[in-house]
Amino acid sequence: MSLKSLSLLRYSVRAYKKDVSVEDSKLTYTLECVRLAPSAVNFQPWKFLVLKSDEAKEKAYPCYDRPWFREAPVIIICCADHSQSWKRRSDGKDHADVDVAIATEHLCLAAAEQGLGTCWVCNFDAEGIRRAFDLPEHVEPVALVPLGYPVDDNAPVKTRKPLEEITKEL
Amino acid sequence: MSLKSLSLLRYSVRAYKKDVSVEDSKLTYTLECVRLAPSAVNFQPWKFLVLKSDEAKEKAYPCYDRPWFREAPVIIICCADHSQSWKRRSDGKDHADVDVAIATEHLCLAAAEQGLGTCWVCNFDAEGIRRAFDLPEHVEPVALVPLGYPVDDNAPVKTRKPLEEITKEL
Repeated sequence: MSLKSLSLLRYSVRAYKKDVSVEDSKLTYTLECVRLAPSAVNFQPWKFLVLKSDEAKEKAYPCYDRPWFREAPVIIICCADHSQSWKRRSDGKDHADVDVAIATEHLCLAAAEQGLGTCWVCNFDAEGIRRAFDLPEHVEPVALVPLGYPVDDNAPVKTRKPLEEITKEL
Repeated sequence: MSLKSLSLLRYSVRAYKKDVSVEDSKLTYTLECVRLAPSAVNFQPWKFLVLKSDEAKEKAYPCYDRPWFREAPVIIICCADHSQSWKRRSDGKDHADVDVAIATEHLCLAAAEQGLGTCWVCNFDAEGIRRAFDLPEHVEPVALVPLGYPVDDNAPVKTRKPLEEITKEL
């Protein structure tokens, strides 16, 4: 599938088939695509908590309290490790967010490619996740990504700014 | 092509065929994949300066002074617009870096899919770029991405942490 088709296929899935689990082979493929993502100086400053048990998922639910979030058979907590991330020497800029975002988008695209749905969840209680999963201070949960089969396979039409608005040729 | 194959194909290209330009159709496809990238609350807080003229590229060179950087026929300055980016209400976290990283990885993957090379350049003089291109304070250049045909089509073998090190199943 072309990247453009894949980009059109991926959408924010907010309804999952609750009783259909994700095959191990598909989960492994997805995580393998995550693993191959590039990062600044190849430091790979990331950690992915893959929540499959009800016990683990129950700990995450209060941090993003939406009924549909409880339907996904898998939830992945995508974390940045600020003790491992590259910081630019000239101004100290920490590239942890950049790196975790790259890897997380690999996750979402790999899932879509296999007929799975995901949603980038950023509006969650980060401190709550940190406490619930005993994350050390330098490990920051950047995104929660539910993973499962979407109830609706059809991606809605994408609303995006026109190319002329976001690019400038010089 | 599968996302895994594409992830293996994309590598940091640091040698470009200096006299082979990028076809307009390939550049347009690449930018279209960028445009389709997701972002927090779909705010699309990004701007991409596409440097094709010698005059524009000359302004960028001093901000990342490497001989190979001068070989690429196109340089794209990937910028975050902090006046447009989503900030999490609970703790103010700005998602500009996350969003621009997603779109920039779409750029690099779309290029690789078409036989083009790119390199995520982050270790550049961001203030210099801001001055050279008159970027307002709220627009931050996050990455410089040279784009062109690689001298060597063969991606080196990827060195990555094993899956067991970056994931934890719960």
